[in-house]
Order: sequence, then C-alpha cells, then structure tokens
Amino acid sequence: MTARVKVAVFGASGYTGQELMRLLSRHPEAELIAATSREYQGRPVSRIFPALARVVDLAFTAPDPEAVAAQAEFVFTAVPHQTAMEIVPRLLQGGCRVVDLSADFRFRDQAIYEAWYQPHAAAHLLKEAVYGLPELYRDRLKAAKLVGNPGCYPTCVILGLAPLVKAKLVRLDSLIADCKSGVSGAGRGASLATSFCEVSDSFRAYKVAEHRHTPEMEQELSGLAGEPVKIAFTPHLVPMSRGILGTLYAGLAKPLGDEEVFGLYQDFYADHPFVRLHAPGSLPATGHVRGSNFCDIGFKVDPERRLIIVLSAIDNLARGASTQAVHNFNLMAGYPETLGLDLVPLTP
Amino acid sequence: MTARVKVAVFGASGYTGQELMRLLSRHPEAELIAATSREYQGRPVSRIFPALARVVDLAFTAPDPEAVAAQAEFVFTAVPHQTAMEIVPRLLQGGCRVVDLSADFRFRDQAIYEAWYQPHAAAHLLKEAVYGLPELYRDRLKAAKLVGNPGCYPTCVILGLAPLVKAKLVRLDSLIADCKSGVSGAGRGASLATSFCEVSDSFRAYKVAEHRHTPEMEQELSGLAGEPVKIAFTPHLVPMSRGILGTLYAGLAKPLGDEEVFGLYQDFYADHPFVRLHAPGSLPATGHVRGSNFCDIGFKVDPERRLIIVLSAIDNLARGASTQAVHNFNLMAGYPETLGLDLVPLTP
Amino acid sequence: MTARVKVAVFGASGYTGQELMRLLSRHPEAELIAATSREYQGRPVSRIFPALARVVDLAFTAPDPEAVAAQAEFVFTAVPHQTAMEIVPRLLQGGCRVVDLSADFRFRDQAIYEAWYQPHAAAHLLKEAVYGLPELYRDRLKAAKLVGNPGCYPTCVILGLAPLVKAKLVRLDSLIADCKSGVSGAGRGASLATSFCEVSDSFRAYKVAEHRHTPEMEQELSGLAGEPVKIAFTPHLVPMSRGILGTLYAGLAKPLGDEEVFGLYQDFYADHPFVRLHAPGSLPATGHVRGSNFCDIGFKVDPERRLIIVLSAIDNLARGASTQAVHNFNLMAGYPETLGLDLVPLTP
Amino acid sequence: MTARVKVAVFGASGYTGQELMRLLSRHPEAELIAATSREYQGRPVSRIFPALARVVDLAFTAPDPEAVAAQAEFVFTAVPHQTAMEIVPRLLQGGCRVVDLSADFRFRDQAIYEAWYQPHAAAHLLKEAVYGLPELYRDRLKAAKLVGNPGCYPTCVILGLAPLVKAKLVRLDSLIADCKSGVSGAGRGASLATSFCEVSDSFRAYKVAEHRHTPEMEQELSGLAGEPVKIAFTPHLVPMSRGILGTLYAGLAKPLGDEEVFGLYQDFYADHPFVRLHAPGSLPATGHVRGSNFCDIGFKVDPERRLIIVLSAIDNLARGASTQAVHNFNLMAGYPETLGLDLVPLTP
Repeated sequence: MTARVKVAVFGASGYTGQELMRLLSRHPEAELIAATSREYQGRPVSRIFPALARVVDLAFTAPDPEAVAAQAEFVFTAVPHQTAMEIVPRLLQGGCRVVDLSADFRFRDQAIYEAWYQPHAAAHLLKEAVYGLPELYRDRLKAAKLVGNPGCYPTCVILGLAPLVKAKLVRLDSLIADCKSGVSGAGRGASLATSFCEVSDSFRAYKVAEHRHTPEMEQELSGLAGEPVKIAFTPHLVPMSRGILGTLYAGLAKPLGDEEVFGLYQDFYADHPFVRLHAPGSLPATGHVRGSNFCDIGFKVDPERRLIIVLSAIDNLARGASTQAVHNFNLMAGYPETLGLDLVPLTP
Repeated sequence: MTARVKVAVFGASGYTGQELMRLLSRHPEAELIAATSREYQGRPVSRIFPALARVVDLAFTAPDPEAVAAQAEFVFTAVPHQTAMEIVPRLLQGGCRVVDLSADFRFRDQAIYEAWYQPHAAAHLLKEAVYGLPELYRDRLKAAKLVGNPGCYPTCVILGLAPLVKAKLVRLDSLIADCKSGVSGAGRGASLATSFCEVSDSFRAYKVAEHRHTPEMEQELSGLAGEPVKIAFTPHLVPMSRGILGTLYAGLAKPLGDEEVFGLYQDFYADHPFVRLHAPGSLPATGHVRGSNFCDIGFKVDPERRLIIVLSAIDNLARGASTQAVHNFNLMAGYPETLGLDLVPLTP
Repeated sequence: MTARVKVAVFGASGYTGQELMRLLSRHPEAELIAATSREYQGRPVSRIFPALARVVDLAFTAPDPEAVAAQAEFVFTAVPHQTAMEIVPRLLQGGCRVVDLSADFRFRDQAIYEAWYQPHAAAHLLKEAVYGLPELYRDRLKAAKLVGNPGCYPTCVILGLAPLVKAKLVRLDSLIADCKSGVSGAGRGASLATSFCEVSDSFRAYKVAEHRHTPEMEQELSGLAGEPVKIAFTPHLVPMSRGILGTLYAGLAKPLGDEEVFGLYQDFYADHPFVRLHAPGSLPATGHVRGSNFCDIGFKVDPERRLIIVLSAIDNLARGASTQAVHNFNLMAGYPETLGLDLVPLTP
Repeated sequence: MTARVKVAVFGASGYTGQELMRLLSRHPEAELIAATSREYQGRPVSRIFPALARVVDLAFTAPDPEAVAAQAEFVFTAVPHQTAMEIVPRLLQGGCRVVDLSADFRFRDQAIYEAWYQPHAAAHLLKEAVYGLPELYRDRLKAAKLVGNPGCYPTCVILGLAPLVKAKLVRLDSLIADCKSGVSGAGRGASLATSFCEVSDSFRAYKVAEHRHTPEMEQELSGLAGEPVKIAFTPHLVPMSRGILGTLYAGLAKPLGDEEVFGLYQDFYADHPFVRLHAPGSLPATGHVRGSNFCDIGFKVDPERRLIIVLSAIDNLARGASTQAVHNFNLMAGYPETLGLDLVPLTP
C-alpha cells in the first residue's frame, strides 16, 4: 500500500472543521495528520467532539502555519476571513496546496472584496486562486495551488441558476434568490441569536439585501452570462441544523416549456455526479441531501407570470463547505472526484 | 351582569377549532355553548384536547346545523371547503350570523372560485359575504351576516403589500410572495407528509405556482389597485408548528426612501391595533406573534435592484385563522375589536 | 375604578423576566411600573423583546433597589442567586413585598443552602421567607413579606409526589426523579451548550446526581413526610423550548390500586385550581400546559415491580417560575388566586 | 474482483428499510439486489426515497419470499411482527440466511412471546434463532442461519447494564430503565400521534410499565445474571427524529467507586469496537452517535442514595435496528465486524 497524502485542517474547532475531520478520517487516500485550534490546543479532538471518538485520534495543535506546512501537503483552512489572508500565504510559502473555506480568496476583483469585507493583505493571490465550484471550474481546479471554496449560499444559488443564465433564457435584471438556511451556517459558538429558544419554532429573515454572499453570486453569474448581473438576495434562518434551500426567481426571456428546461439542466450537469435533477412535478428538500455533497435541483415554470422558479437544495456544512472542499481536494490531487464522498444522505 | 352572546364552533376537532375554543372560552362577552365533531361526538372536549381541561367544559356534539342554529347566535364554521357551502346556508337560515373559516365564501367571483376549487352550491351568498380582513373591510364587517374568513397566506401577504399596492408605488406586474409556513397550516390529521420525521430538520417548497391561495391574494390586491393584479406565490413548509413569514418582493415604480415607506405604512395602519410596524433596521419574526392576532411588518428597500422587500409575520392559526375570526366576530357583534384578543405573544 | 397595585420586575432581561412582563401587563389588578436591566437600561422593552410591542410600554431602568422600592409595592426579583440576597433586603427595607425567583430564599436551613450554593449574606431572612408553593403553603403565603419562589424542577417533583409522601404510601428511601426540561430552563443568554445546533435532534442528561434543585426537593418532601427524605434526581435537556416532565419512581410501601391512588390525589388537590389530574389510562404531556400555571399529573402502578410511576408536567417558565410567582403575588395581595392566570395552554 | 454476496431487504418501505438500503448500497462486500414493498412495488426506490437517488438504482418488487430467496443469499426482513413469522420460514426454506428486524425471533421462550404478542406460527425456529446483540453473542452469530435483531430500547438498555448485572454489583430487584426515544422509533407512516404539531415542543411518556420491549430486556438481563431479573421500563417520546437515551438506575449491592465501575466496563467491552465509554465526569448524548453503530455509555455513582445511574445512547434506527443488522450480517458472513460500518456520526 502506498502512502496516503498528508492533510491538515487549520482551524478545526468550528462546525466546518468538525465536518472536514468527519470526511478526511474516512477518505481512502488522505491521512489527517493535524487539526489546529487556538482555543483547544493540547486537548484530544474527541473530548471536544465526542462524535469523533474512535474516529479521529489526534489532539488539537497550535495554529502555527509553518509547523503545519512542514508536515502536510494539503491544508484545509477553516478560519474566519481576514485571518485566512494571513495564514494562507504562509502555508503556500511552506509548499502546501490550500483549500481555503473563508471568503478571502473567492473574489477575482480586489475592489469588490474590499467593498464588502475589508482591505486585503494578500491580494496578489487573488489572480491565481481558483473559485472552487467544480461544476464550473473542474479543469482549472486540477492544477490549482489555492482554491477559494465557495460560500454556502452562493453554491446553492449559482448551481441553481447557472444553466439558465448561461443560456440567457432568463432576464438578467430579474434575478431573486430567496434562501433559507439551517442554523449551523452561523457557525459554532455562543450567541443569543442562535440559541435554541430564539430559533426554535420561529422563522425570520436577516441581512436582507446586504448579505456578503451577494457579490460572490454576482461574480459567478456575471461570468456565466458574459455581462454584469445583479441578484437580489434574502437570507432566512430556519429552525433546523443543516441545509439550505434556495427559491430562485427569474423572469423568462421567452416562453419556456418544462421539457426544454429539464433538458437544458440535464445537458449542463450531464457529467457531474453530485447534481441530481428533479423531473418536472417533483421538488427537492434539504433533508434529502443531509450530510452529502449532492445539490438537488427542481423547478417550476409559471407561464402566466412569465417566471421560472428554481429550487436548489444543499447541505450548507457539506456541499456548502466541507464536502465541496474535499471535492476540490480530489480534483487538485488527481483522484476521482467522488473519492471519499460516496456519502448517502442521512434521513430522517 | 347581562347575558353573554351564545356562540358555537361548528367543526371543532381540528387545530383552528381548538384555537377557537381557546379564545372563546376566555372571551368576556361570548359564551361557548356548542362544539361539533362528527368523529368525536359525545366525548368531552378535554379528552381530545387535554390542554383544554378546566377550560372548556363541553362534550362534542353532532354536526347538526339546525340544532346548532337553535341555540347559538353566532357560529364559527371550521369545516373543510365544500362542506362549508352545505352547512353555512342552513345556519344562516336558522338565524345565525356566521364566520366561515373555509375558502367557500372568500370570493366575490364565482368563476374564480370554481376554477380553483369546484362547483359552488351556494353561490347566491357570495355577494353578501364580506371578506374578513378587518384592516380592509372594518365597516362592512359590522353589518355582515356572513364573513368569509381569509386564508392564512392571503392574510399575511395582503396586509404586507396593501399600502404599496394601493398607493401604486410598486410595479403591479412584479409581485412575488415567497411564504414560509409552520406545519399546523396543514391541519390536524394523520399524514406522512406532516409527520415529525419527514418535516423535522428539513425545508421544502410545495405547490409552487399552483396554490389555491393565489387567487384570493389577487382578488384583494386587484381591489386595492383598482386594476387586475397577478402575484407569484411560493409556499414552503418550515419545521415549526405555528407561524407564517411572507417575504414579499415588489419592483419599485419610482425610487423610494426608507422614511417614505415607513410613513406610508404608519398612515395606512394608523388606527389598526393589530398591525405592528418595524422601523427601518428592524425585522419581524414569527416567534414574536405566536398565539396572538398581531401582524408584524418590516421592510427593506434595495435601491440598486429597484426592489422593495417586505417581511410580514403572522401566526397562521391565530391571525391566519382563529383570532382573526374572533376579530371579525367582535366587529359583527359591535364589541371593541380588541375584546378578548389582548393576547400577549408567547415566546420563547 | 380604584388604583391598581404598583408592581416592578427587578432583573427583567431574562426569560422569566419577559414572562413576568407578559403576565403582569394583563393582570387586572397590577400595574407594571418598572422593569430593570443593567444591560438594557434606557432601551424600550419592546426593542429587546419585540413580542411585547404594544403590550409593555416601558423602557428598562437601572437596577437600583431603592429607586424601585420608592415606586412599587410588590417586586418580583428575577436576578441570579447571590445577587438576590443583596437586592432583596434593600427592597424589603424600602417597604416592598417581594417574590424572589432565585434560590436565595427557598431554604429554611442556612447550612443546606451554603452547602450547595455559597455563604448567605441575608440569612436572617430565611426564617420569615415562605416557600412559594401555593398547594402546600397557601395560608402562610397570604401574610408573607418575602416569598422564595420554587425552582422549576422542585415544583414539578414536589407536586407530583406530595400526596404519596404525605400519606407514606411509598418507601421513602426509594424515590427517583427522572426529569426532562426544555432549554429555556437554562436561561436567556449566549452559550454553546444551549445553541440550536448543539441541542436540536439530540438528548442528554446533565448534572446527574449533583443538581442544586435536589436539596430543595428534599426539604419539602421531608416536611411532608415528617422525617428526612432523600431523592435521586437526574435532569435532562430536551430539544424544546418550554416544559418539564418529571417521571417519578417510588417503591410501594403496600399494594396500591389505581382507584385508591387516584382518589388520594383528588382529595389532596381538591380545592387547588391549577393541578389537573389524569384519570388512570391517560397521561400528561408538557405541550398540554404550555404557557399556563397548570401542573398536570398522571400515574401508573406497576404491581409486578411494586412501583408507582407518577408523571408530572409543567411549563418551566410559567408554573416553574413566573406564573407561580404571580400566583404567589395573588395570595399575598389578597386577590383570587386565579386572577390574571386564566391562561389557556397554547398548543400546538 | 470476486463477486459480492447478494442481499435483499424484504419490507423496504419503512425507515429501517430505508436505513438498510443506505448501508447496504455502500457495503463493500454486499450487493443489494432486491427491495420489496407491497405498497410501492414497481416504483423506483429513489422516487419514494429521494435521498437515495444515485445511490440505490432499483425499483421495489413484490413481497414474494420465494422470488427473493431465488436470488439472494442473505435477507434482511423489516416487516412487522406477525408478518415476519410467515415470511422468514419461507426464506430459510429457500436457502437464505436471515436477519429479522421484527420481534418474532428474539425470544427463546415461546410462552413469553405469546404473552406479550400473539400466538407464534413458527415457534420451532425460536431455538435456532440467535439474539443479534453482537457484544453478547458474537460467536454464536457467526454460524446463525436466523438472527432475531434486537429491539431498539433493549439494545440500549442491555448494553448499558450488562457489565453490572453480570458482575452482580447491583441489586437485581432494583432496575429501572427510563428511556427516551426519537420519533422515528414509531416507524414511517401517517399517524396523528407522530405528526409534527403533536410532537414538536412537547415531551411525554407512553406505554408506561407495559411496553413490549420489557420482556426482551428481562430475557437478556436474566441470562447475564443467571437468575430471573425484572426491570421497570418507561419509554418517552422526544421531539427529535433519531436517538435513544437510556437513563438506567440500579441500587448498589455494595459501595462502588468511579474507577472500579469504569474498569469493569472497559474490561467488558475491551474488544468490542462499537461501544464507546465515557470516563467519569463525561456523559453521552444521542447526537454523538447519530447515523452510526456506536453505543456510547457513561455513568455516575450516587453514594448517598446507593445508586448507580448509567447513561446509554444509541441511534434507534442505526444501532437500534439497521446498522446492528448489518453488524450481524458481517458476523454471519465471516467479514470483519466493522465492514461497511465505519460510519462517522453526523453532527450537528
């Protein structure tokens, strides 16, 4: 048996870090050799995440990029934006290839990043970073040294709209993404807003028309359209742990029939194993993708109102973060893209 | 002390019936004298609904309209549509005034009703029935013999959009209502689709662009606009028991500022005690209205995309059904409209 | 109309404080004149608790006992233990009568308090404080100046076991209370342990055999028995917001039949309006008491194992805290005990 | 590559059937060749269970034991009790080896089965059937032709108490199992009692002291003790989909220290990969085992009350049904017992 490739999770104390450890511990070609956490350094991973007992036999180590780079070939950085831009260059310097799960390397245009986030300390890397949406960038990802892993909402929305936008079958000034996310999207941490009693048996919108995932959607939809595209984006908080459903509205540029749309999506995603399409009459649900890398897409044409409504469902922690990161890793490392990702959605 | 008015709930075995009994048992001017149920007749209400022990001291009686009419002055009919059209005329015949919670008496245009439901057996009553949305029809409701109590989704959407549509500040061909409902909207009853394991930790849309509440919204929005209005309506199922949040999109007919919109809503709802407005920067949540007759409304203008997004929150069983029915009863009977409805939302 | 009695909530920023404001705002004889909060002072109550918009028209004030005492006749103190022992004497000094919702005035024996909590700074008040369980101390509560409002778990357990323990029909060395609580019992505040994702779709025990509510149960059960009683107590966290179910095990001191037990409970609670008994064959659920002051009790005799299993259900924020506090206030002020507490449980 | 062993799921339309398909589709040595369902025959599995799209590429077939036996070597029967006793003999007759997930082949004593269920039509098989709890019967399972897969509650309780009962460190007349289960334990199907609105934000006990899993626990605990053992068993319904926590009370036969107990459990489960022990001071939660075959066990000694409280957590659909069935299959077929079961618990 040949040696497996050494991988590390940098910033492993959050839910995406935990999810990465879940995946990498079972990946047939990866060997998880380090998981860092400033807060938990020195403590066994399984004390902090009892679900990982007998699964991950490591203790958290200090968040030292050079020490990690000395050991690992691939690093998944699951630290907050702004922290990532300090860590990632040092990991690359140390010879690692990096999948960064923050927002810091998702934007090609520094000005857009800085308009929505803050000044960028490693802007020279934006050109070489590849946006880690495999259905759009599979070939470029194979050679990438640095991947900007997409945000959860953008993954859901871009995959849902890509075929229509690319084919320009919809009016590009009419796009609306009404998205609903489980609470894990807010991360692991103490906060009144995500406490059980505040979330349970309630439903609300937040950051309406001002969420930072908007420019990320617009970057990719513009790229698909070949012209600037705006999208109205409304995120909501659902009393559930995992899952995002995007309800995506687009005005029809011309009358469209169910079969025409279905055919378009089938063609677009023909050789992409992780997009599952619902035939007309059937619709996705977030429960159907829980824990997996699948994106399930269905749609409905409303001819009277000249609209198409696309429903796109992912698991925000999986396809919206960690399984997609492993998907990107597979492409970068030259493995089959499904390797270690043959995860069956867990339901109920 | 003068005698209280005798009221009955016809069809009291569902959630709206239970909710009506919760309200009427504490209404200072109403005396609940009968609750009918074919399934449970003869059994104490508190055996079927243990929450109502020491609250409602009745047994269910047979669903006999003449027997009910002989006793009650006001009847709340909480039976399915199509059943209502058979029962209500007999109650009116017996001298009762009726608040009907089904869809049977919500439509002024028989053809629209029949296009979305089935042939109408009591179409002669459509002209005299009043649509029971107090903020729009308060004066007419006072004299009504028959009230068609609005659907839950239409209540949420019409209240949310009325000021904008009436003032024609939005493009009438651009309306979208993306609505999310708790599971109680599906009624009380055994069904796989609403079983805990199918609903919990999942989120999905249903009946996209084909839900029967659409024409009801369009009837009232058209009335407000003075011209035919269409709306795209997408209902979703939230893993919670109570509550509807409507996320309502409308293209701006002209640029609008926050204060202008807020002022418009304040004027429109100035003397309506059950609509609470969120000032710009704050947004409603369904948990804030649980168990009450409040409709909480907030909004956000997105100037770049020339949209306004209105958020409207109600409790589907309360404002979307039973408290609104009591609100209508108060108006019909000449009581203060808040009588018996000073319910403080229960949260958490 | 005579003036209503002026009341204040001292420490109103938590869930029990919010719940007290819900109740007092609708109490026919109380006028809520102040709600204090160090964190929120100066801000409108309805900004922090949007559910209370149009219900409570106050701003939070500073936690100044003398200022509160100058205005209010009755004060509900909903501050943490150890803080209460500093505040309460100053309120009493100022002439107020106090219902304290902390643990500081629940114990008659200073040594027990100090063994489980910390040194007591106002131990001289322990003698005059009355334990606020109306079913046990109704007469003494009428004259009380200071009431120690019971803990949520003790309320559930003591009411469930009192008739059996008093009648000594069970072995006093065999008592086990396996209790399950909703998350609101942990209070309002940011904490990882009570965040939605940690609680949802999971179930666990905590503080097994070491929870501070144990000595409180033992104090009252010993009082009922007239001899020292120990009880094993295991609390659990249920993924729900409100409610406690106690599953109470007791070895039978002699064979008991269903009717004998049911009669015993009926006699014990004959003139207590807030205890509802389930006849043999029926069992309580926490959903049946949500938002109300009811305690619902059922039981099952297991003759083969010589056990009785009693099921006792309350709403932890209501009967386990705030409605019970108002119940005590009613007794202290000489009102009917149900005044302002005719709350119908909200379900579903 | 050698051929994989052909397996079938007989009765695959419920949650345990769905779970078996999830597992068998990814088992490296099993080939799932049939899934039967009377209700769904002829329809693709992925239409009924959209989570299994691109995972199981079969259509449901008719529930014909001979047809199944002609194809499969191993059959998992996930039909109701009483149906199983008709199907299983025909499958055995056809040469299959069977893991039966019903109660029909769990009892060695026909009289006990018939006292709690109904007359047994295949009682001759009770002697050869092996109780499928691998930690107790690993060796016998290897040669079994028919395995009676344990009930969910008994799995949780027996694993939790086995070391103490076998070592007789506890009083055998003192055992109490207070168990809490997620809703999936009630199966997939339409029922008011398991509808979302009835279950959500509520907690209740059911079938107190009369649940059919009691004699199953008593059979195995008696076997471990070498003498008849009774246990009091109270099941509860938790508003969550998956998971059982057993809170197990036992009187101490002699004083016991934490380390002594921990050592006892470590020895007992030393070579059993699916039992994970919590060291003193740490406790299990059902969320930590979700989707996996793990049973997590912790405990607390209460010396003052001379009790030990053991906490045992499993996933009722996994370890309480389907992963345990695959575990048994692995033993029967001679595979490593963890094959295809290296499932990492999915949390949050």
